[in-house]
Amino acid sequence: MSDKRTLKVAVLGCGAVGSQVVRLLTEQSDDLTARVGVPVELVGVGVRRLDAPRDVDLPDGLLTTDVAGLVARADVDLVVEVIGGIEPARTLILSALDNGASVVTANKALLAEDGPTLFEAAEKAERDLYYEAAVAGAIPILRPLRESLAGDKVTRVLGIVNGTTNFILDKMDSSGAGFSEALEEAQELGYAEADPTADVEGFDAAAKAAILASLAFHSRVTAADVYREGISDVTAADVASARDMGSVVKLLAICELRPGPNGDQVAARVHPAMIPRTHPLASVREAFNAVFVESEAAGQLMFYGPGAGGAPTASAVLGDLVTVARNRLAGTRGMGESAYADRAVQPMGETRTRYHVAIDVDDRAGVLAAVANAFADHDVSIQTVRQEGRGADAQLVVVSHAAPDAALAATVEQLRSMDIVREVTSVMRVEGGDE
Amino acid sequence: MSDKRTLKVAVLGCGAVGSQVVRLLTEQSDDLTARVGVPVELVGVGVRRLDAPRDVDLPDGLLTTDVAGLVARADVDLVVEVIGGIEPARTLILSALDNGASVVTANKALLAEDGPTLFEAAEKAERDLYYEAAVAGAIPILRPLRESLAGDKVTRVLGIVNGTTNFILDKMDSSGAGFSEALEEAQELGYAEADPTADVEGFDAAAKAAILASLAFHSRVTAADVYREGISDVTAADVASARDMGSVVKLLAICELRPGPNGDQVAARVHPAMIPRTHPLASVREAFNAVFVESEAAGQLMFYGPGAGGAPTASAVLGDLVTVARNRLAGTRGMGESAYADRAVQPMGETRTRYHVAIDVDDRAGVLAAVANAFADHDVSIQTVRQEGRGADAQLVVVSHAAPDAALAATVEQLRSMDIVREVTSVMRVEGGDE
Ligand SMILES: NC(=O)c1ccc[n+]([C@@H]2O[C@H](COP(=O)([O-])OP(=O)(O)OC[C@H]3O[C@@H](n4cnc5c(N)ncnc54)[C@H](OP(=O)(O)O)[C@@H]3O)[C@@H](O)[C@H]2O)c1
Ligand SMILES: NC(=O)c1ccc[n+]([C@@H]2O[C@H](COP(=O)([O-])OP(=O)(O)OC[C@H]3O[C@@H](n4cnc5c(N)ncnc54)[C@H](OP(=O)(O)O)[C@@H]3O)[C@@H](O)[C@H]2O)c1
Repeated sequence: MSDKRTLKVAVLGCGAVGSQVVRLLTEQSDDLTARVGVPVELVGVGVRRLDAPRDVDLPDGLLTTDVAGLVARADVDLVVEVIGGIEPARTLILSALDNGASVVTANKALLAEDGPTLFEAAEKAERDLYYEAAVAGAIPILRPLRESLAGDKVTRVLGIVNGTTNFILDKMDSSGAGFSEALEEAQELGYAEADPTADVEGFDAAAKAAILASLAFHSRVTAADVYREGISDVTAADVASARDMGSVVKLLAICELRPGPNGDQVAARVHPAMIPRTHPLASVREAFNAVFVESEAAGQLMFYGPGAGGAPTASAVLGDLVTVARNRLAGTRGMGESAYADRAVQPMGETRTRYHVAIDVDDRAGVLAAVANAFADHDVSIQTVRQEGRGADAQLVVVSHAAPDAALAATVEQLRSMDIVREVTSVMRVEGGDE
Repeated sequence: MSDKRTLKVAVLGCGAVGSQVVRLLTEQSDDLTARVGVPVELVGVGVRRLDAPRDVDLPDGLLTTDVAGLVARADVDLVVEVIGGIEPARTLILSALDNGASVVTANKALLAEDGPTLFEAAEKAERDLYYEAAVAGAIPILRPLRESLAGDKVTRVLGIVNGTTNFILDKMDSSGAGFSEALEEAQELGYAEADPTADVEGFDAAAKAAILASLAFHSRVTAADVYREGISDVTAADVASARDMGSVVKLLAICELRPGPNGDQVAARVHPAMIPRTHPLASVREAFNAVFVESEAAGQLMFYGPGAGGAPTASAVLGDLVTVARNRLAGTRGMGESAYADRAVQPMGETRTRYHVAIDVDDRAGVLAAVANAFADHDVSIQTVRQEGRGADAQLVVVSHAAPDAALAATVEQLRSMDIVREVTSVMRVEGGDE
């Protein structure tokens, strides 16, 4: 135990999350003292603008725009980074570690892009770098993956880790709305930003998938390793087609251990997928998040809660802060990066998936055989075919068994070029059931 | 860092859980070495009978009936207690700690009855005592409560923490079966023991409620502090009545922070309750467990998974073992008992609950007024009254607002004594909605 009488904390950023971190640090200070062992004193809050309105009452003199100076202070033990983005966040975190501070961050973008640089800096400085808030906001998921499941072998993680897209898809499912209409409603209600690209195109979820895959499989996975498709092409017809098979469309972050030529590989991808309504993830409504974990011994676990919001995210930040503070007092550190397994990343084309394909066809003899042949040509076996409508409205809905994603994509290509196929109206991967 | 080249572990008990702990220790040994930092070597397995059949292949010479001798070995660093029950488990854990070993246990009965003795021994010995597996099997819930939410204020925990009773109630709900029939089916399928008392009468859930309440509210709560009612009196009519209001009956472990005369008190109780089908806990089927946590900043979180079973429980034990082993190597300890808040336990009679009451009444003018008066006599306000049937089948279904439990019980007493009341056919508490 160190003889520290108090731990000094600097918070970088005082926006949606930072203001709530500051509020909790102040309001819960007696509890924090009891849980940490010594008082945790807020010594500075770094921002861009001194005069911006804040969601929290700040004691005089704490706010500063000299963020680099704040991080360089010799007396700062703990730094919370809730500015976001790559720079100046990266430089600030690196200089905090270099300066001997322990760091807590919520910055998924930075971790997914350049995590290894940060982890190596923490290792070199022999300091903690914690980031529970970076994935699924308030939901404790990184600590369970890293610690609770440390004696088990995680085989798959399926997550609804972006609230905006879940809100939009849930709206489309419950009201029959199209994508644009649902997006507009999400924007009006504050669930989507004016420029929704990062959420809607799956960039945010892909960053989280990289972080989840790294932890689950003890390997380095960055955002660039994650296959990514957003939801902007999901149509009301896709959602209706899912409904017809008792399924629902969700944007999933999927991280799996898959057999490769030289041992297990990591497959990480983000895309819309149909999952059965009976799957625990199917009941995750509105902007909530949930992460479903499969492991060898524990079986199936699910973690559910608010994936964003200032206060929920601040709760996760403070949880990390208490651990990091206790470690510091005890002169120890928590588990650092664990990448010993060093697995290769499986290319998306080789990753086995299942497809749901709806095809408008000419209603004549031999159509089904022709369509079935297209699948067979690519060694894709069919699980079910459903024929709907007659005449000009004739439609075939095919659900495949698992096959390499590239073979499925090539099958769809071939279907599109066939005479008897008027249109391929819906193509979507299927998850959460048997292969 | 210590210069230990290997950590030695003794496992006490080799039954459902112990055999899986031994299996994982062997099968995952490379991963465990990578995660802990040094090899974890199994040096002995304590049992009652040397010749009993085991679910795992044990290396020769590991099995011993001299359990006390195993625990007293000078070279044992880590002791896993999966014997269960009060004695000899307590004596063995105390002597392991006294001997300088760190301990991991799954023993909810012992922790709920005599936790403080164990925690004090761990404190005195300056050793870790971890017990994630004691509540909700594989589901990481204690670590999130204790660490992830350490910067937040937990206000309520609602848990389905007993798989046997959830299986029975789910069966009653889905098939209309009565309690005995559903219990028999649970026994046939291995979800209930031949003597089902501990599960069915809520003793097991009450032990878990005590553990959850202690952690959530940083206070000492033992099984004796937990109000307990089992499910053996739940009838098919209760379940049908719940269904009529869009609800489902679950055996809940409920831990709450409630205002008392001198600050917040802890209320902890286990009883069947009706919850709305839209509540996340309502969709927990069969023998699964789930714990729903409400906290000030994080909001509502849920943790879901298998609540029992050898392998899932062993996963939780191993997760603790990795942490405890790492702490030992680092010469540090995790968070010990946290009981600084030292809150009083609120008596059940004072705890505010809501009641659902179904009453067979005489079908004549003034009946509703008379029933309403009975509630008013005890200052209980009524949320809804539904009249069903006519004549000899006339029934009133009343749902109250929140009131002290004693006032609600007294109201039911009074109803039972009234002339116009033929029978009070169903009385059950209501949870998971607005007060
Ligand atoms: N919001 C959520 O629900 C949520 C959930 C999970 C994770 N996160 C993560 O949490 C982090 C913060 O998000 P947020 O929503 O709180 O962002 P935000 O509301 O935009 O706040 C950002 C804060 O950083 C400050 N800042 C920006 N650039 C700066 C610079 N160059 N130097 C100093 N200060 C600067 C801003 O100062 P001014 O106030 O002076 O402009 C502001 O206080 C991000 O990494 C985000 O991904 C957020
Ligand atoms: N089973 C679950 O799903 C589950 C879930 C959560 C928590 N737990 C907890 O885990 C613990 C173990 O449960 P379990 O289901 O594995 O029990 P179990 O199958 O009955 O196994 C008990 C083991 O302890 C040994 N044992 C019993 N009395 C002993 C004594 N006096 N001295 C030495 N060894 C003794 C037995 O030896 P023999 O084999 O020689 O008889 C047996 O190997 C309990 O605390 C339980 O509450 C169990």
